[in-house]
Amino acid sequence: MSSPIGLAVIGAGYWGPNLVRNAQATPALRLEWLCDLDLGRARSVLGSYSTVRATASVEQVLADPSVAAVAIATPAATHFELVRAALEAGKHVLVEKPLTPDAEEAGKLVELAEESGLALMLDHTYCYTPAVRHIRELVRGGGVGDVQFIDSVRINLGLVQPDVDVLWDLAPHDLSILDFVLPDDVRPIAVATHGADPIGAGRTCVAYLTLWLSTGSIAHIHVNWLSPTKIRTMVLGGSRRTVVWDDLNPSQRVGVYDRGVDRRPGELGPDERHRALISYRLGDIHVPALPEGEALRGVMSEFASAIAEGRAPLTDGRSGLRILRLLEAASRSLNNGGVRVEL
Amino acid sequence: MSSPIGLAVIGAGYWGPNLVRNAQATPALRLEWLCDLDLGRARSVLGSYSTVRATASVEQVLADPSVAAVAIATPAATHFELVRAALEAGKHVLVEKPLTPDAEEAGKLVELAEESGLALMLDHTYCYTPAVRHIRELVRGGGVGDVQFIDSVRINLGLVQPDVDVLWDLAPHDLSILDFVLPDDVRPIAVATHGADPIGAGRTCVAYLTLWLSTGSIAHIHVNWLSPTKIRTMVLGGSRRTVVWDDLNPSQRVGVYDRGVDRRPGELGPDERHRALISYRLGDIHVPALPEGEALRGVMSEFASAIAEGRAPLTDGRSGLRILRLLEAASRSLNNGGVRVEL
Amino acid sequence: MSSPIGLAVIGAGYWGPNLVRNAQATPALRLEWLCDLDLGRARSVLGSYSTVRATASVEQVLADPSVAAVAIATPAATHFELVRAALEAGKHVLVEKPLTPDAEEAGKLVELAEESGLALMLDHTYCYTPAVRHIRELVRGGGVGDVQFIDSVRINLGLVQPDVDVLWDLAPHDLSILDFVLPDDVRPIAVATHGADPIGAGRTCVAYLTLWLSTGSIAHIHVNWLSPTKIRTMVLGGSRRTVVWDDLNPSQRVGVYDRGVDRRPGELGPDERHRALISYRLGDIHVPALPEGEALRGVMSEFASAIAEGRAPLTDGRSGLRILRLLEAASRSLNNGGVRVEL
Amino acid sequence: MSSPIGLAVIGAGYWGPNLVRNAQATPALRLEWLCDLDLGRARSVLGSYSTVRATASVEQVLADPSVAAVAIATPAATHFELVRAALEAGKHVLVEKPLTPDAEEAGKLVELAEESGLALMLDHTYCYTPAVRHIRELVRGGGVGDVQFIDSVRINLGLVQPDVDVLWDLAPHDLSILDFVLPDDVRPIAVATHGADPIGAGRTCVAYLTLWLSTGSIAHIHVNWLSPTKIRTMVLGGSRRTVVWDDLNPSQRVGVYDRGVDRRPGELGPDERHRALISYRLGDIHVPALPEGEALRGVMSEFASAIAEGRAPLTDGRSGLRILRLLEAASRSLNNGGVRVEL
Repeated sequence: MSSPIGLAVIGAGYWGPNLVRNAQATPALRLEWLCDLDLGRARSVLGSYSTVRATASVEQVLADPSVAAVAIATPAATHFELVRAALEAGKHVLVEKPLTPDAEEAGKLVELAEESGLALMLDHTYCYTPAVRHIRELVRGGGVGDVQFIDSVRINLGLVQPDVDVLWDLAPHDLSILDFVLPDDVRPIAVATHGADPIGAGRTCVAYLTLWLSTGSIAHIHVNWLSPTKIRTMVLGGSRRTVVWDDLNPSQRVGVYDRGVDRRPGELGPDERHRALISYRLGDIHVPALPEGEALRGVMSEFASAIAEGRAPLTDGRSGLRILRLLEAASRSLNNGGVRVEL
Repeated sequence: MSSPIGLAVIGAGYWGPNLVRNAQATPALRLEWLCDLDLGRARSVLGSYSTVRATASVEQVLADPSVAAVAIATPAATHFELVRAALEAGKHVLVEKPLTPDAEEAGKLVELAEESGLALMLDHTYCYTPAVRHIRELVRGGGVGDVQFIDSVRINLGLVQPDVDVLWDLAPHDLSILDFVLPDDVRPIAVATHGADPIGAGRTCVAYLTLWLSTGSIAHIHVNWLSPTKIRTMVLGGSRRTVVWDDLNPSQRVGVYDRGVDRRPGELGPDERHRALISYRLGDIHVPALPEGEALRGVMSEFASAIAEGRAPLTDGRSGLRILRLLEAASRSLNNGGVRVEL
Repeated sequence: MSSPIGLAVIGAGYWGPNLVRNAQATPALRLEWLCDLDLGRARSVLGSYSTVRATASVEQVLADPSVAAVAIATPAATHFELVRAALEAGKHVLVEKPLTPDAEEAGKLVELAEESGLALMLDHTYCYTPAVRHIRELVRGGGVGDVQFIDSVRINLGLVQPDVDVLWDLAPHDLSILDFVLPDDVRPIAVATHGADPIGAGRTCVAYLTLWLSTGSIAHIHVNWLSPTKIRTMVLGGSRRTVVWDDLNPSQRVGVYDRGVDRRPGELGPDERHRALISYRLGDIHVPALPEGEALRGVMSEFASAIAEGRAPLTDGRSGLRILRLLEAASRSLNNGGVRVEL
Repeated sequence: MSSPIGLAVIGAGYWGPNLVRNAQATPALRLEWLCDLDLGRARSVLGSYSTVRATASVEQVLADPSVAAVAIATPAATHFELVRAALEAGKHVLVEKPLTPDAEEAGKLVELAEESGLALMLDHTYCYTPAVRHIRELVRGGGVGDVQFIDSVRINLGLVQPDVDVLWDLAPHDLSILDFVLPDDVRPIAVATHGADPIGAGRTCVAYLTLWLSTGSIAHIHVNWLSPTKIRTMVLGGSRRTVVWDDLNPSQRVGVYDRGVDRRPGELGPDERHRALISYRLGDIHVPALPEGEALRGVMSEFASAIAEGRAPLTDGRSGLRILRLLEAASRSLNNGGVRVEL
């Protein structure tokens, strides 16, 4: 094995400590720095037993030749400048979602990374869970047949964020999962979003997205900061099978249902009884054995591999850009009373 | 106790047998007839041990002076003529939802019943479950505070109906429950519906309704015939408490959560940190003991009591009319790409 | 089809109404009488719409030549006399568990039935559920391999019975299921029972049975009248697969787990590390699609078929006798501080 | 705040890393050493970013004056020598269960600690979960009334341990919880254990313990290494309320049920109908809000506090000794066919 890739984590807030912990557990990486404008916070995250260096200076980090890559977990508004500086300093970049708050700026970063031959990776964490990887194989491998409907629910008593609404806070998870698992020819073509701010928080706290897919079916996403119960489920209905993912059920995260409703081939004549053409499958459920493990470990591992192999990561800048455009369109719909916005 | 009210059930299809069974178990009613155009089906529903008479003639039933009331469980397209004939024959009427497929005609029936001093009742079965009655008391009694959001899911591998889409098949349940539990001053003012027919059934099989309420919050309903899992839940988030109803969890159908997100009073100044104004409650859950019992028994009992007491039933024709107007508006939205339709 | 078998139900108490309802729904049977010492109760069970005759006289029932079979749901103490009288009158008999409270008397009834060529069937209702039938096929067909352990839990806030303790009230269900699903060469050889009466009810309200099987493994049964939660689960661990039955989970009553712990072949040498010989399977779960339906319908159907075909029913008198002997031994252990009692 | 207590962790196997991690997160402690005979393993547990020192020499650790306390997570067979050496070196001791494999030796350690004025604490981790602390308050504070029955299930597809059977591996958890939550006057007086080794592992893999309590009621514990499903529940039935603890249900770990069966006061006359004296409560369920958090953090915190305050820890050596005597008696029963063994 070659020597590990020197890494700096930038941002010691909510998510940074998870990056620090998982970077340290990844043999292909060597954590050199934790950087935060608040040096005390960086030191506190590292704790009193660590040999990793803390700093408040991004410049110091980017100037360090032992640092080949950075992982950025700062507020979204700072992403553009930080990612650009890192890429210009020749560093590979792993960045939290969203890539930036603005798709145009994000596009520039994607181009810059591609021109520089540097890895630009989004931390779409869920895509690295065994459950989502399994669903991707099922869906893209034909195991579910044609995708008929998708319903995703991600609700919780969540922190009302100071800088983003519930749409930008939670929906990127669902959108990045859909981007990851759907076949390349099943793409969103339009979106409509309804939402409300019933507590007067100054930002949308409950939102419902409808995505029209290129195949004529729809995907629907419910994100909610106000629910006292925590639900994280996604159902992907297909012509052959339906996948139910319940991320909070460790004994059965994924169930593959051989159940569904089909229309049998044949034209629907004006006098035909429609029932004759509908058939029901009420088959078994299959629960695949999936390994347990922290998804962020997979993120770190993929980042290191993409760098080592000189290839684009699975969740590269382009995927981040696609999701950003969806979010922008969804926001536009939300701000216009829920009108359908074409992509 | 006075002598029981003579009843005829009209329609021996999917739901009729349930009316027959529950009417027989209601001491205040005396089941005289089961009427169906298909006399053999009526006889088969009664079975070989019954003294109840079967007939194919509605006229015979309506001409029978021992019949004071009829319960109608025929296809919706026949409701207008049957209900009118029954009211004109001086019979009280219990009718399956929807009252009719057309709100204008329904309005005529409501007027006719009121003019005739006859009971016109909708079989909004769920309103007679102990769970929904309990929620009504909580919500209308102030126990949940201001309603902040409502989310209802009713999905199942359901029969694709020959005459109605999933909206008209399932959403009346959710809409009648909302009509029943919400305070009189919290009313829907607009609706938008997105849906799809991904199996080519010729009718919408998956639909999402967003209702804007007069208070500024939203209610959302998900109805779906294609889901391999069966879910029937409703969450009513309030400023004081949140109610979670899971109709398929007999050990805990209703949970009252003392959890939520609040904005504390005070103006949001431009420089204030928004976090300071948000507070979280993470309190206990209370699961009320509720009696078990078949809801339709409560329907029959309310029908008999309303007749005996000469008053409008809890779920009267006017409630049926309100729900019908909502369904019509929802359909209009569905047929116009999901535009918001004012009520 | 031949003409239906004339049936009388004796006993209109807790369970009798279920027999009445299911007999009426079974085309191969013709319900002639409902008999109860309390004639008013019999009439009340039949209701005011039934053509079935009520009587307080067993003699009248047994003397009726249109009655070919009786279903007995009276207190256990009356079973011996009633079953004997019915058999001597030439009637086939379906009887609630236990066959009688005394194994010796039960043996006489079994002999009498066999000499008379009459069907004597126990209403071991659970054996006629799709779940238990499926488990029987799996276990007896080799799908689970060697049975390694069995754990059954049947607890609830149950009625403290006036005439029996929790052992005789609930454990017959578990014992009859084991008798039904286990291969013929896996038989209980000894039993020990611990119990308590912590509320001073005058009878055991909580009991734990351990059964030693002929194969060296054990089966354990927990029955409890005092639990505020209702649990009905049975786990059958096998060398190939493990079956988990959760009777209260309609969406997934039976799960077949390809998981377990095995010892690989090879002698365990004194110096060998034991770990080397243990292997773990962490495979998939399979949830078979099972039809829904009332088990008692299956009981009635099997009773009618056994009579028509002149064969012993699946749960015949001999199975009732085996279970009775187990219960007697379990009671003996309970009364002697939990000592092991050989069978 | 005074300066932190210097700590060494001895044993870098299965549990040691958890002690290391939680010690580092406890401000009142200062982790000085991780000691393991296998120095490479100790270094690997610390990782490449730690300033904590690794050593293979217990002597070095015990000779270090900066070490005031040790936490021992080595195989049970080594506990006696290690704990004695640590106490004799004047160190406070936190030790994994069981205190030692032999109650007599354990008694010597308890005496030695008390004579030396040093803290001797057992890592009965579950006692430091918010759930168990809450149950302790409920039970000892009278909230459940008289304890009527206890049923504990701890089953899983678990590692077949090389040195202990399932009884010694898992039952200490249940026994330490009972020791912790039960009032001082409710104590086990006898035990019986049934078990089996159906896979030929050379040690019991499935075991059932019955404990007779001084009040006449019983507690029952089911421990099992072979179950494909993971269950960790404990039910404590009381005359006033019943507590249900489901450790694997994060949304509702503890439920307090106002349900039960009571015998009303009054003598049971020979002619009285027993039913008249039994009453049922079917009241509400209350789910207290409990903080989440790692229990081992609480263990570390209690260890530090007990040292600082010069008092016995909550789960002190005497509690460890009581549990050890129970385990020895349970083993004796298991080895003698399940006979009742007095304590």
